[in-house]
Order: sequence, then structure tokens, then C-alpha cells
Amino acid sequence: MDIKDYFPIWEQLTLEQKERLTNGAKEHKITKGAVIHSGNADCTGLLLIRHGQLRAYMISDEGREITLYRLFDLDICLFSASCMMHSIQFEITIEAEKDTELWIIPADIYKNIMDSSAPLANFTNEIMAARFSEVMWLMEQIMWKSFDKRLATFLLEESALEESDTLKITHETIGNHLGNPREVVTRMLRYFQNEGMVKLSRSTIEITDPKRLAALCEA
Amino acid sequence: MDIKDYFPIWEQLTLEQKERLTNGAKEHKITKGAVIHSGNADCTGLLLIRHGQLRAYMISDEGREITLYRLFDLDICLFSASCMMHSIQFEITIEAEKDTELWIIPADIYKNIMDSSAPLANFTNEIMAARFSEVMWLMEQIMWKSFDKRLATFLLEESALEESDTLKITHETIGNHLGNPREVVTRMLRYFQNEGMVKLSRSTIEITDPKRLAALCEA
Repeated sequence: MDIKDYFPIWEQLTLEQKERLTNGAKEHKITKGAVIHSGNADCTGLLLIRHGQLRAYMISDEGREITLYRLFDLDICLFSASCMMHSIQFEITIEAEKDTELWIIPADIYKNIMDSSAPLANFTNEIMAARFSEVMWLMEQIMWKSFDKRLATFLLEESALEESDTLKITHETIGNHLGNPREVVTRMLRYFQNEGMVKLSRSTIEITDPKRLAALCEA
Repeated sequence: MDIKDYFPIWEQLTLEQKERLTNGAKEHKITKGAVIHSGNADCTGLLLIRHGQLRAYMISDEGREITLYRLFDLDICLFSASCMMHSIQFEITIEAEKDTELWIIPADIYKNIMDSSAPLANFTNEIMAARFSEVMWLMEQIMWKSFDKRLATFLLEESALEESDTLKITHETIGNHLGNPREVVTRMLRYFQNEGMVKLSRSTIEITDPKRLAALCEA
């Protein structure tokens, strides 16, 4: 994987712009659990994910969390460089959910090229539109989907990401993903267990009937 | 008001680009209540609001609504031209809340200029970031603010917009703004009335204690 693989508009950049992007990008390894970016003040730069998994989330004044979206191999994280745009008036925290290798392109280098390259500016627009779409999807879920469906969807997604039917995850962590208190998660998981869809044990959740969980998501 | 007043980057456009924007913009008058844009398929174009008030909202499959943001004089509406960007994967409806005069710039004309003008592309990025920020603010409200505070905030905002303490608005319409069923709105308004903050009568809500409502928002 190379810097140019992240930019479908690469060939529309000048040689000098390509060089500045390539030379500006620095390799980093982020340990699982580390917070890479926190809030608006912090301007880490653009993250190009080589391998791993990041989580972008919002935190309330009281410390409650909700996951906005996740980033995977070949994704670009824009909001870690939110200082590039004055109109970004919200704070997102980004943490590594798995050990992650990535490139960081400093915000000033990227912004400088974007200021003179319409292709790069329009591509950046598309990245933002894609994240905006994910947040709008989430808003729809929160507004109009009942919690049992959201939890069922989350368990199946986790199972796919971890490639396992047995999830090592606490009820509190699930609450932080879905934006609900731990007790609400526990109550619904117990209901799922009574219905035979999962089996709960100390710090793990085993999915015992993925088909019924999937049917619940669709319902 | 002139087309150039909407674009702080106007002087960075070429003469030809300025002419294309100016000649492409067509004046329209929209009657209060009319839907200007609906869903993703529809690509009305960029709306430049001269005078009036628009509401951007989301609708569920069951017809439930929630207001995402409002647009006022000198605002630009981007999502009515969402076909310009492939990554916009959500549907927004836009309606006139007051009689509104606006210019429409066809999406193809705008996109064409944006494709070659970095300043226009970056300015468009800022517009999208501003809307994204409004939606993120709303998400915070929904996730972490109790309904009494959201309703109090809404009543005070409406009162400011209408320049009146007496609002002619149904409980159902308020529900459509805030994304809650009518009954929930009615119940909370009755509570506000018992507390002496509002006075309800047939199809109007009179704000009788704006200070206490404001204190409730802050609490």
C-alpha cells in the first residue's frame, strides 16, 4: 500500500504536490486502546489507515459516549485534521480499537495543497460527505430504531469484525458504542439470553442464534 | 443582495466563472409550506436564500420527521444539489417555512466550476462542514439532553424567529421538529403550563415566563 492508493485523484495532482504529500506522510504505529485525537483543539493531521481499526466517537460533558463511525484499512480520517476547516464546530475523539499502522499527513501540508488543487479539495469534500452520511444513518437509527434492533445489529457487526461468535466485550463498552447506559444494555442482553439468541458469561457474549438476531435487525 | 455576496471567495474566481454563476442563477419565489427538495434523486440545485426561511428535515419510513437545521437570509443550501457528490448517501427534505425568495444555481453549472476552482471547492467544503456541525449539535441534544430542555429551547427559538410571545403552532408540528410523537409534546406542554411557563389555548402557545424557560434550557 502506498500514499497514492488513498487518492483516486492522484494523477490530477502536480508532481510537486505528489512529492509534498508523499514526503509529508509519516508512519506511525498506534497501540490498541490509545487515543489518537481528542477534541477540536488538537490538530493531529490526516490519518491514512494502513492496517487496523479506529473508532470515532462523541463524549458528553458527563463522560457518556456514542460511536459515530469506524475506520478500516485504506480509510482516511479527516476530522483529526479539523483545524483545516473553520466551520467544523464539533469535537470528535478517535481511538485505536485494534493495533493500527497508519500514515499521518500534517494538516498544514494537506491544507496547503488543497488550497490550490481543486481535485484534492473536491476529493476531501467526498470524504466529508461520506462521514456525514454515516452520521445521518446513525441519527436515523437513534431516532427511529428500537434499542433491541440496534443492539442486535451491533452484536452481529462485532462478530463479523472479530471473526468470532464469542465476543470479549463488557456491557459498559457496548453502552459506550450505542450511547446507552450499561444497565439498559444488560437488561436487553438478558432478554436476548432468555430468548436463546446469546449466552452470557463473565466478560463474554456468545452469539448462539445469529439467524434470529439477524431477523430481529430486519424486522 | 447580489450573487457575489454569498461567496466570500468571489474575487478568487475568474471573470468567466463569475459570469457563469451569475447567469446561471435564476430567481424563484417559494410559497410558505411548499417542498422545494425531496430525497436524493431530486437535484434542484444550490439555493441562495435572499429572504425567507427554509427547514431541512429527515423523514422516517413511517412518516415521522425531525428538523435538522434551518436556513435564513444569505444562507446557501447545498443538499438540494446533493447529486453533485456521490458520497452523499442520505435524504433530506427542504420546505419553505415562510414565503421565501431565492436564487437557484443548477447543480451541473456549480459542479462544473467547482471541478476547476479550488477556492469554490474549499468554500463548498466549509458549507458542508457548517451543516455537519449543526447535525452533530442536534445529535448531542438528542442523545444527552432531556426533552423538557429541548422543548424549552425550541419554544424560545420560535418566539425569537416569529418576534412574538404567542406561537401559532400545533403540538404535532412541534413533534415533527423535535422528532417526538405529538402526545409527548402535549404532555410536556401541560407540565410547562402547570408550572406557569406557558399558557395553552386552541392552536396557540403563549410564553408567559420566558426567563424560567431560559433557565430550564441552561439547567
